[in-house]
Amino acid sequence: MSEPVPQENQAVPPAVEATTAPAPGQAGEGETPAGPSKGELKKRAKEAEKAKKAAERAAREEEERKKREAKEAEDHAKQNYGKLPLHQSQERNHRRFLKFAELSPESVGQRVIFRARMHNSRAQGAKIVFLAFRQQTHTLQGVLVVSGEKDENQVSKQMLKYSQLIPSESIVLVEGVIKSAEVKSCTITNYEVGIHKLFTAVEVGDLPFSIDDASRAEADFEKAEKDENLQYSRVALPTRLDNRVMDLRTPTNQAIFRIQSAVGQLFRDYLNSQGFIEIHSPKLQGAATESGASVFKVQYFNGTAFLAQSPQLAKQMAIAGDFERVYEIGPVFRAEDSNTHRHMTEFLGLDLEMAFEEHYHEVLEVLDEMLKNIFKGLQSKFQHEIEVIKKQFPHEDFLFLDETLKLPFKEGIKMLKEAGAKGSDGEELGELDDLSTENEKFLGRLVREKYKTDYFILDKFPLAIRPFYTMPDPTDSTLSNSYDFFMRGEEILSGAQRVHDPVFLAERMKSVGIDPASMTGYLDAFKLGAPPHAGGGIGLERVVMLFLKLGNIRRASLFPRDPKRLNP
Amino acid sequence: MSEPVPQENQAVPPAVEATTAPAPGQAGEGETPAGPSKGELKKRAKEAEKAKKAAERAAREEEERKKREAKEAEDHAKQNYGKLPLHQSQERNHRRFLKFAELSPESVGQRVIFRARMHNSRAQGAKIVFLAFRQQTHTLQGVLVVSGEKDENQVSKQMLKYSQLIPSESIVLVEGVIKSAEVKSCTITNYEVGIHKLFTAVEVGDLPFSIDDASRAEADFEKAEKDENLQYSRVALPTRLDNRVMDLRTPTNQAIFRIQSAVGQLFRDYLNSQGFIEIHSPKLQGAATESGASVFKVQYFNGTAFLAQSPQLAKQMAIAGDFERVYEIGPVFRAEDSNTHRHMTEFLGLDLEMAFEEHYHEVLEVLDEMLKNIFKGLQSKFQHEIEVIKKQFPHEDFLFLDETLKLPFKEGIKMLKEAGAKGSDGEELGELDDLSTENEKFLGRLVREKYKTDYFILDKFPLAIRPFYTMPDPTDSTLSNSYDFFMRGEEILSGAQRVHDPVFLAERMKSVGIDPASMTGYLDAFKLGAPPHAGGGIGLERVVMLFLKLGNIRRASLFPRDPKRLNP
Repeated sequence: MSEPVPQENQAVPPAVEATTAPAPGQAGEGETPAGPSKGELKKRAKEAEKAKKAAERAAREEEERKKREAKEAEDHAKQNYGKLPLHQSQERNHRRFLKFAELSPESVGQRVIFRARMHNSRAQGAKIVFLAFRQQTHTLQGVLVVSGEKDENQVSKQMLKYSQLIPSESIVLVEGVIKSAEVKSCTITNYEVGIHKLFTAVEVGDLPFSIDDASRAEADFEKAEKDENLQYSRVALPTRLDNRVMDLRTPTNQAIFRIQSAVGQLFRDYLNSQGFIEIHSPKLQGAATESGASVFKVQYFNGTAFLAQSPQLAKQMAIAGDFERVYEIGPVFRAEDSNTHRHMTEFLGLDLEMAFEEHYHEVLEVLDEMLKNIFKGLQSKFQHEIEVIKKQFPHEDFLFLDETLKLPFKEGIKMLKEAGAKGSDGEELGELDDLSTENEKFLGRLVREKYKTDYFILDKFPLAIRPFYTMPDPTDSTLSNSYDFFMRGEEILSGAQRVHDPVFLAERMKSVGIDPASMTGYLDAFKLGAPPHAGGGIGLERVVMLFLKLGNIRRASLFPRDPKRLNP
Repeated sequence: MSEPVPQENQAVPPAVEATTAPAPGQAGEGETPAGPSKGELKKRAKEAEKAKKAAERAAREEEERKKREAKEAEDHAKQNYGKLPLHQSQERNHRRFLKFAELSPESVGQRVIFRARMHNSRAQGAKIVFLAFRQQTHTLQGVLVVSGEKDENQVSKQMLKYSQLIPSESIVLVEGVIKSAEVKSCTITNYEVGIHKLFTAVEVGDLPFSIDDASRAEADFEKAEKDENLQYSRVALPTRLDNRVMDLRTPTNQAIFRIQSAVGQLFRDYLNSQGFIEIHSPKLQGAATESGASVFKVQYFNGTAFLAQSPQLAKQMAIAGDFERVYEIGPVFRAEDSNTHRHMTEFLGLDLEMAFEEHYHEVLEVLDEMLKNIFKGLQSKFQHEIEVIKKQFPHEDFLFLDETLKLPFKEGIKMLKEAGAKGSDGEELGELDDLSTENEKFLGRLVREKYKTDYFILDKFPLAIRPFYTMPDPTDSTLSNSYDFFMRGEEILSGAQRVHDPVFLAERMKSVGIDPASMTGYLDAFKLGAPPHAGGGIGLERVVMLFLKLGNIRRASLFPRDPKRLNP
């Protein structure tokens, strides 16, 4: 409450009129060379009378002003607003604090208390201020009206002024009564709060950008460029990421990270229901496995360690260790100097590995059901969040079929060729060629057209373009028991049946130029006997980015890391 | 099926008796100096007769042997056993495979197929072999009996021999019929499987140690030392960890990691029900925050990054970013050269942070309820696993109260002093002294005696022994709004209300010798306004170790990392 109440808008009392006439009895004193004329005397008497009246009026006005000021300085609403001292858990009253999301018809007429961000304020005349309070994706209108009564809920002019000077983004504590209303400028359109008390708990200084500017869709900016009445400031992605804490407060980001959290939850829910257990494998590795080129080195006491590029080896070792069905959600690290919309140096891997009985399609089907469980869960339980995001990132709802399209790789190549696609070298596409990013996207469009789905599986990839631990097809040695899953034409999951025989695995290593001696820990696991198994790895941020069509993977990462960014 | 059927136990046909008598008509040919005597002729005739009979018998026996061999070589059971070719998902028959855990009275009489480890085998006479098959924590007895009938389920002597020669830990595919039985040597005591088919899917070579030895309790080894008939080999922890894949197959480890998985699940379940969202913060940091001494350096392209020692700063920034209630399950890295039973260089942090309204005890209570939810969930849903673990690591069930004991730090010091505890310097314990590990354990015992609980909270720690971001107590500036949670006398959770005011935070930094300029990203978050908040961090492996009294934290980590171990 130490905040001085600002005075600038205070009604200024009328200034006392200055008069040029001397006071009576003082005029011409000591000046007697010639007596004044009668007319002159009359005139003087009149002027004196006028001056007297003016003085009287001024005195009266001065008195009134003092009275009024005294009355205003009293401020019976003082206890209802102001700045709170530092919150050190001084007391506990077990009051229930309102969450805007909980508002319902029963709330009307209830006295509530809540904590929120000061989103903005707008005065209407001298006696009313409309405030917008924000909690995550919701804004609620508050109304502050100067009241006549002198009761405990009194709102004074000073309080009104105070409310207008609270900086945006400050955290306020509000008490008031919920009313039915029709509101256009807030996300909550059918209620508002009549404010009785308004305190600043945390005052905020300069902002790098406004939440409103950071929340606009690209289309809004394009509109503003053609309309000189609209003054919007585009907030570039690097600016957002430099000030990520501020950026994260936009309703869009609040919704994105609720969805990111839900994806992990839905992933686990499905796998738990299928008898999986969650494992945690070490990120610090003694050797640079898989592909040495893109691995980060760590100074480990007097030696060197490496950051795991995936839990691939560990999860397979867990299978050899008899855990049968395992998953892991954890960071994976890629020391690749890729500066694209879909690469980061650290991202979240949703990995799973599963022993199977007869056919690797048992695993492919679990992966498929798990992903559909994610899509269904998001569309049924997070419609509010999806709608919030669509305002800034407009997109068509993600399409998927009850029975997922499982396309053999060769079939995909055929579709591409028929549509006129060429290889990245401009040559005819071969049945065993890898797919370029462009052709993947092209295939995604062809599939969407033909099958009405944004989601499908490509199965039976050529062996030569898959990692050494991929199991070859039993009848065609140029193919393999491996698969990729696609969302909106981009790969989100890659997986395969793995080679579980140590002799064959060592052969495969040699055939791709890896010295089996460099991976003894891994090979040893298979010498101890591993059941047939398959699995896959998903990039969490890619799923979020593609489901919501965010256009850049950094938007799906809380604090993204790329070759040029390590902060905040 | 390419495995040659071993012959060593095959019944050896009786060798043909050798006779010294020359064949008739050949005796003495060309030798006629004197005619034989009558007696001599009689004798010769007798011998010839004898030889003839012997030859006839030998011929008969030879014929019988050939018949028998032919019959055996036929082996009508050939199709019912042998080694399978490499599993490349050749075919799919959609058969349902049995999990031992699912056996029930309805299973009796059912024909089943399952995949399992060959645990061990034991012959009983020439016609019966008992096998133990293992699936995770369960072993099931299999009985193989040489059958008379020539039906499709025929079991031959060769099949019996084959079964005994399958190396332990090989992965087998078994078909048979479930029967009621009384079995002592397996974990499943009321059923066994009558085997019709037995194939080796994955054959295993030399083992570093046996699952049985790796599963014994310390008491068993002590008993064996006094009993010369018991030949047990102790498997030391480093040997286990060097061969972790093998070690993980013990029923104890199968149970430990199911419980580890459950702890994470129960942690999430409770927090999700309280409106938390899961976040993922980067492990690669641009600056060595918190305490620079124990942080791992990473070579990051042409610069340097650091591995996060905790998500402390990131989760607080998420609170400043308006997420209100967040948790994270992820690796944390400590470059501390500590070689103790409870330190690792990489472990799993269960972290949470929460904005609160009136008092940090709101957060303390959420933490408390969350932990009790874990304890209750484990004791109600994982009794089987707990019992399995108790066989190797005997312990009393973990005790906790419905209403958790919340002891002020001063009160804890008082209890210790009254019981005669001294400071680590041998001096009298002071009210603001830190607790040594020994005194923590001592206090744990005192609390258990007095309050009958293995779990309690110590609240209101002295400010001086807590991190700079800890909020001081509002009335006593030597104390703070911070707490530790204990299990069996060891700290498992440390937390506090945090300083959310940027000016005060910078002051606190300076007071402990940290330059605020070195943590601008963190400070900036608070300049943008953060609500009052508190949180805590839990070591997943510590909770598992202490709940199950495993004695060493490495036993609660899948592939533990310490200053001397980076593999496997």
